[in-house]
Amino acid sequence: MAEATARRRARGTGGGAARRAERTSTAVETAKFIERNIPNFEVLTTEALEIIEHNAETVLEEIGVNFVNNPGALARWKEAGADVQGERVRLPRGLARSLCATAPSQFTQHARNPERNVEIGGRNLVLAPVYGPPFVRDLDGGRRYATIEDFRTFVKLGQMSKWLHHSGGTVCEPTDIAVNKRHLDMLLAHMTLSDKPFMGSVTEPSRAADSVEMCEILFGKQFVSENTVLTSLVNINSPLTFDDVMMGALETYAAAGQACIVSPFIVGGAMAPVSVAGTLTQVLAEVLAGVAYSQLIRPGAPVIFGAFVTSIDMNSGAPTFGTPEAAHITYGAGQLARRLGLPYRSSGSFCGSKLPDAQAAYETANSLNMGLLSGVNFMLHACGWLEGGLVSSFEKFVMDADQLGTLHHLAKGVQIDENAQAMDAIREVGPGGHYLGCAHTQANFKSAFWRSEVLDYKPYETWSEDGARDTVALAQVRMRKLLDAYQKPAMDLAVEEQLNDYVARKKASMTDSFT
Amino acid sequence: MAEATARRRARGTGGGAARRAERTSTAVETAKFIERNIPNFEVLTTEALEIIEHNAETVLEEIGVNFVNNPGALARWKEAGADVQGERVRLPRGLARSLCATAPSQFTQHARNPERNVEIGGRNLVLAPVYGPPFVRDLDGGRRYATIEDFRTFVKLGQMSKWLHHSGGTVCEPTDIAVNKRHLDMLLAHMTLSDKPFMGSVTEPSRAADSVEMCEILFGKQFVSENTVLTSLVNINSPLTFDDVMMGALETYAAAGQACIVSPFIVGGAMAPVSVAGTLTQVLAEVLAGVAYSQLIRPGAPVIFGAFVTSIDMNSGAPTFGTPEAAHITYGAGQLARRLGLPYRSSGSFCGSKLPDAQAAYETANSLNMGLLSGVNFMLHACGWLEGGLVSSFEKFVMDADQLGTLHHLAKGVQIDENAQAMDAIREVGPGGHYLGCAHTQANFKSAFWRSEVLDYKPYETWSEDGARDTVALAQVRMRKLLDAYQKPAMDLAVEEQLNDYVARKKASMTDSFT
Repeated sequence: MAEATARRRARGTGGGAARRAERTSTAVETAKFIERNIPNFEVLTTEALEIIEHNAETVLEEIGVNFVNNPGALARWKEAGADVQGERVRLPRGLARSLCATAPSQFTQHARNPERNVEIGGRNLVLAPVYGPPFVRDLDGGRRYATIEDFRTFVKLGQMSKWLHHSGGTVCEPTDIAVNKRHLDMLLAHMTLSDKPFMGSVTEPSRAADSVEMCEILFGKQFVSENTVLTSLVNINSPLTFDDVMMGALETYAAAGQACIVSPFIVGGAMAPVSVAGTLTQVLAEVLAGVAYSQLIRPGAPVIFGAFVTSIDMNSGAPTFGTPEAAHITYGAGQLARRLGLPYRSSGSFCGSKLPDAQAAYETANSLNMGLLSGVNFMLHACGWLEGGLVSSFEKFVMDADQLGTLHHLAKGVQIDENAQAMDAIREVGPGGHYLGCAHTQANFKSAFWRSEVLDYKPYETWSEDGARDTVALAQVRMRKLLDAYQKPAMDLAVEEQLNDYVARKKASMTDSFT
Repeated sequence: MAEATARRRARGTGGGAARRAERTSTAVETAKFIERNIPNFEVLTTEALEIIEHNAETVLEEIGVNFVNNPGALARWKEAGADVQGERVRLPRGLARSLCATAPSQFTQHARNPERNVEIGGRNLVLAPVYGPPFVRDLDGGRRYATIEDFRTFVKLGQMSKWLHHSGGTVCEPTDIAVNKRHLDMLLAHMTLSDKPFMGSVTEPSRAADSVEMCEILFGKQFVSENTVLTSLVNINSPLTFDDVMMGALETYAAAGQACIVSPFIVGGAMAPVSVAGTLTQVLAEVLAGVAYSQLIRPGAPVIFGAFVTSIDMNSGAPTFGTPEAAHITYGAGQLARRLGLPYRSSGSFCGSKLPDAQAAYETANSLNMGLLSGVNFMLHACGWLEGGLVSSFEKFVMDADQLGTLHHLAKGVQIDENAQAMDAIREVGPGGHYLGCAHTQANFKSAFWRSEVLDYKPYETWSEDGARDTVALAQVRMRKLLDAYQKPAMDLAVEEQLNDYVARKKASMTDSFT
């Protein structure tokens, strides 16, 4: 005990805060982001990749992209050597790719708890929760519009989820707060209820600026000017259109050295060609233009090659998830991102199902597996997504978050040291024997297998006596357990007060807007 | 019409049977077995593979395997150069591998409808349904002991399932039939209710002989002597034990030139070491010994490198499914099988869940995806497995069978021809446009995307009005539709009569046994 106290003092942490931090770190275990020790799965040949890259340059050169309502962007492009006609920007072959070269291939996103910092890029995979749904669903209450209380509950669940490295952004839309004020409450929740990294607002350039200012309170102004503390989601209005709202956010963040995911938002057959190769061509053209633009704002600004891709049910026009075509695009886009030297964002707990049922789980498992194997570096929507992204599901959040453990274990690859070879165990047990009691099993079983915290492994009879619960019912139990055990991570009270003041002051300065 | 009739006549098929066959082939579409156009996913380095191969030879040389109650096998091994002490057989380094060399790397299993023949090996994947459960479950009736009527229903569902290439074997245990007579009714169901390939009995050498005899009636004696018409499941009693019942079946089938899956049955941590590399070592040693033995019976007999592997929940001792450790073993065993030049069997619709719920679907999707990517050539249990293999689920059968379509589409890989590049479509639509109406989409949408026949893609409101059904309820609808549309495939009435006679005669010669 004395030694532990001494070490704690030696690190220079204050007594009370340190003790709180220690309690918290016991209760809340967070896995380190995934460092893959397995290969990526690649579906495109080098020849196919070169054709797609050639075609993407042709798209940029011949067809070009639109930068809408954004005279500043048009001027920057002209200055950089593009052919600008009206809002159409055509890029000479190679220009975008050469501008992309200043973007880092990997960067650190800092969390207020440095143990939660994430490295985005390389062979890493960082997992962040669902983003954007206006509705929530739970087993007892059904489907309803999301509120800020729901939002806070999701942030707490994220903080308590071992396999989740990131607190995310709009885990659901707090529809009970005015549209122009929501971002303040959302950021406050991420900053105070979690100590994992988080995302900034992109719905208005001024809200992006607010996000940076709140980070300056949380991390200190100097720290924010020198480090990345926000990764935010900038969607491209596919096909080939960059709107002023999203670009305004990108400009704000890039100028502040904060990271953006530059992400085509594509339902194949609607916003991109119905073929995989055609979709990849458009995705690459859009990312090249968007990332190049970020580097015009500030060379070296951290950016992520994004690809939100799904296919379409041609009978109903509904987007479909976990499909083989989405997998092909996700694998292929990963190859394109690596050739471009950029971190890659794709995949998630995607599903079209209305309920957290078997459909949801098939589609989600298909998506999560392809996300791991395609080399994704930042996986948004890694848990909690339901109904094509219209709903954040509380039970599915913990079900998916549990499955994320399988990705961690898969990514470890196969050990081949002497202990793993287990020749002594095979000798000890011999033909017809049993391994449960042998020395090697006893020494290794604790770390050998991933173990679910949600799923049922009981014998049939016990399971029946316990109420014959399905996965959703088990997830509800798990969710309540996590929320009961939740502890607000320790925080400097003065900082928290300043954040509260900032939010109150900003809100007081605005009239409610619900559009 | 006249030309079609002429061609039909030229093939020598009778008019009535041909017309029936034509009607049937319209109603029942069966996809060709999967020919992969994507790479295999490999987790082991060459160095790791060599260590495992070296260690497996050490196991065979130092520890050896037991052939239980089988003096004939011991004599064959002695003759082949093994060191035989009691029932323990130790194989000099390299002996097993050199004996395996006569086993074919690929073989055709014939179906009575030649269009349903499957090629097992190479880059192919053949999908067969669940095998072995004593219970069935459906939405209305719950969980109950399986009967021969349930068995026949599963065979019909298999016949009607587009993505299933194989009718399988014991799709459930018909517990209302005496143990010593079941195989006759099961084979009769496969032979008469389906025209897909099927499996033989392995529960007694005499039942294996009955299986071959019934095939001689169905295919003709000469045909069976020259072709493989059965692929049967021979489990190894892991660790390192070959019992007389399974080996008796193997001996019967190998001597008749019929195929066997030589399959370690392993719950990791119980029947094999708790580590992946240790399990792979034991799996390889067991398969080497089993396959080598099949080649002692008849060089060139078709065999499959099997690996039924799952991990264990160390808290309850229950087997667990769809886990990352099972995935590592499945990927690794595929690499070992390819290096040995043998077709590979693994994976399936594995799950531990008691219900066809989200847990079942996560676990199943994890398993099916790893099965495709690990290079499996024959996937038993590809649909319908529930509750750790204790239950065949009717609804899960059609849910999984639907998901098998995703494997077919994934395996196609990515087209890169001019049509797939879709440059004209990107030019036609341009920035801000919409692809739904463009010429390329109209020309390609029908074949572009896999489409589920079970899952729900409706808007929320429509889905609610339709009863807010979950996947199981939708699967029940699908199942009924398939059974309503089922047509018994056309068959020579004389052959059917002979099969019925054979079964009746055999049954009359035996007293019921229920053990």
